[in-house]
Amino acid sequence: MERKRIAIVGVGLIGGSLAIQLHEKKLSAKLVGVEANSLHAQQAIKLDLVDEILPLREAIEQSDVIVLAIPVDKLVELLPSIIDQVGQQIVVDLGSTKSQVIELLKNHPKRGRYVATHPMWGTEYSGPEAAVRGAFENKAVIICNAEESDADALEWVKGMYKKIGMHILEMEAKAHDLHAAYVSHISHITSFALANTVLEKEKEEQAIFELASAGFESTVRLAKSNPAMWVPIFMQNKENVLDVLKEHIAQLSRFKESIEKEDYEYLLRLIEDANKIRRIIK
Amino acid sequence: MERKRIAIVGVGLIGGSLAIQLHEKKLSAKLVGVEANSLHAQQAIKLDLVDEILPLREAIEQSDVIVLAIPVDKLVELLPSIIDQVGQQIVVDLGSTKSQVIELLKNHPKRGRYVATHPMWGTEYSGPEAAVRGAFENKAVIICNAEESDADALEWVKGMYKKIGMHILEMEAKAHDLHAAYVSHISHITSFALANTVLEKEKEEQAIFELASAGFESTVRLAKSNPAMWVPIFMQNKENVLDVLKEHIAQLSRFKESIEKEDYEYLLRLIEDANKIRRIIK
Repeated sequence: MERKRIAIVGVGLIGGSLAIQLHEKKLSAKLVGVEANSLHAQQAIKLDLVDEILPLREAIEQSDVIVLAIPVDKLVELLPSIIDQVGQQIVVDLGSTKSQVIELLKNHPKRGRYVATHPMWGTEYSGPEAAVRGAFENKAVIICNAEESDADALEWVKGMYKKIGMHILEMEAKAHDLHAAYVSHISHITSFALANTVLEKEKEEQAIFELASAGFESTVRLAKSNPAMWVPIFMQNKENVLDVLKEHIAQLSRFKESIEKEDYEYLLRLIEDANKIRRIIK
Repeated sequence: MERKRIAIVGVGLIGGSLAIQLHEKKLSAKLVGVEANSLHAQQAIKLDLVDEILPLREAIEQSDVIVLAIPVDKLVELLPSIIDQVGQQIVVDLGSTKSQVIELLKNHPKRGRYVATHPMWGTEYSGPEAAVRGAFENKAVIICNAEESDADALEWVKGMYKKIGMHILEMEAKAHDLHAAYVSHISHITSFALANTVLEKEKEEQAIFELASAGFESTVRLAKSNPAMWVPIFMQNKENVLDVLKEHIAQLSRFKESIEKEDYEYLLRLIEDANKIRRIIK
């Protein structure tokens, strides 16, 4: 693939990790960062994630590809005006929700320059210092409403994701948001609520520190995730998230009732049902 | 430490992993397995976890130390008669709940030969084939009601745990069961319920398989855990588990309400509260 001049808007966990990959896989002729947080801007330069930091307008002018790796509320705020400014450049976003942004651009004359994507990778940390080498590899990336993107833009974005080791799935935005609620968003709510439960009940923090098993750490680690990223995801995916959250509370209530009533046959069945996740996850 | 003849009752994930450690750290002169499941008995021999499989009575007769690594319902069933049989041997259990078994033996004339412990290590897999080399290292082990054990028995058990790389904490059984509900038992219920939620809502299993991120896998992995181990834990720790489970449902309901009412400031605060787990977990 021909190297392109690439602007990364939002050089945090996701944008920074992508920058490392774009550089290492020789996809970028130049990497320009756009970063509203001045500390993050300094860190991005110091960590050599991007060649320089520019204001958004200049970054757009000087780039062939504009990558948006910002929280989804900032995305719906910025994307229309970015699309207004581009000519034949490619604009791609990496946001975790897709319906609202796609709906927003539906009738935009330059809609074709935009490719809506969601790489299924992340960690519970944030900011440029959280950027990881080798991120995204062997993970799935979802491209939404691909038919609304221009062929050349779509082709380049697919090529980029293949080169960084991702496998590509195509999906309509509505289906994406539904599936994302099941396999990603609910896990975060579960983990946030678990952290709050333990912090509320366990007054001896030293005991958590000393006793916490690998199991606890694994279920609670997502609770460290950045609220600036997650609040807008839950806002934009409200209906799907509520739907699956209500089911989750109902499932927990079954555990509660079976233990309360000492109905251990029912409890056994509930756990055996849960074991079926083995069919799907390793 | 002098090598001892050790019997391991229950050569599964926990007993098998301990067997590997006892052998590698040169703590055992001989390792005898007792295993009710004949397939597991064959596997334990084939995997060289123990030297031979014997019936319980003979294993007790031929051993200096009897280690019990069986589900906690089997433990309360077997332990009194085992203690009846021992002379100066040491009996140690590795169960996840402690109050009931300690209460059961309180007035037993040979109570001193028994040391109640809970090593904070496990995985979501079970059986001898799930046994792991290097298990328990750098984890905590809790010894309960240590003052009720004979000095020589306590000393040997502490030495064993130190030798396999664990750090030792002492605690009363009631405190143990409370803390264990917070930092271990609730994580398992959360994960079981999350698996049931996703299996109930997501009818396209292929989508879970393809889209599941590392985050989902991390919150749901405990859902693969063995019901034969976990049902008795929830039974024996009923009051503590219910107490923390009710709080967890209440915490999830706060997330639900904040999203329903679009009270995103409250949602932000809930997530910021959850982030405080960073103080404790890495």
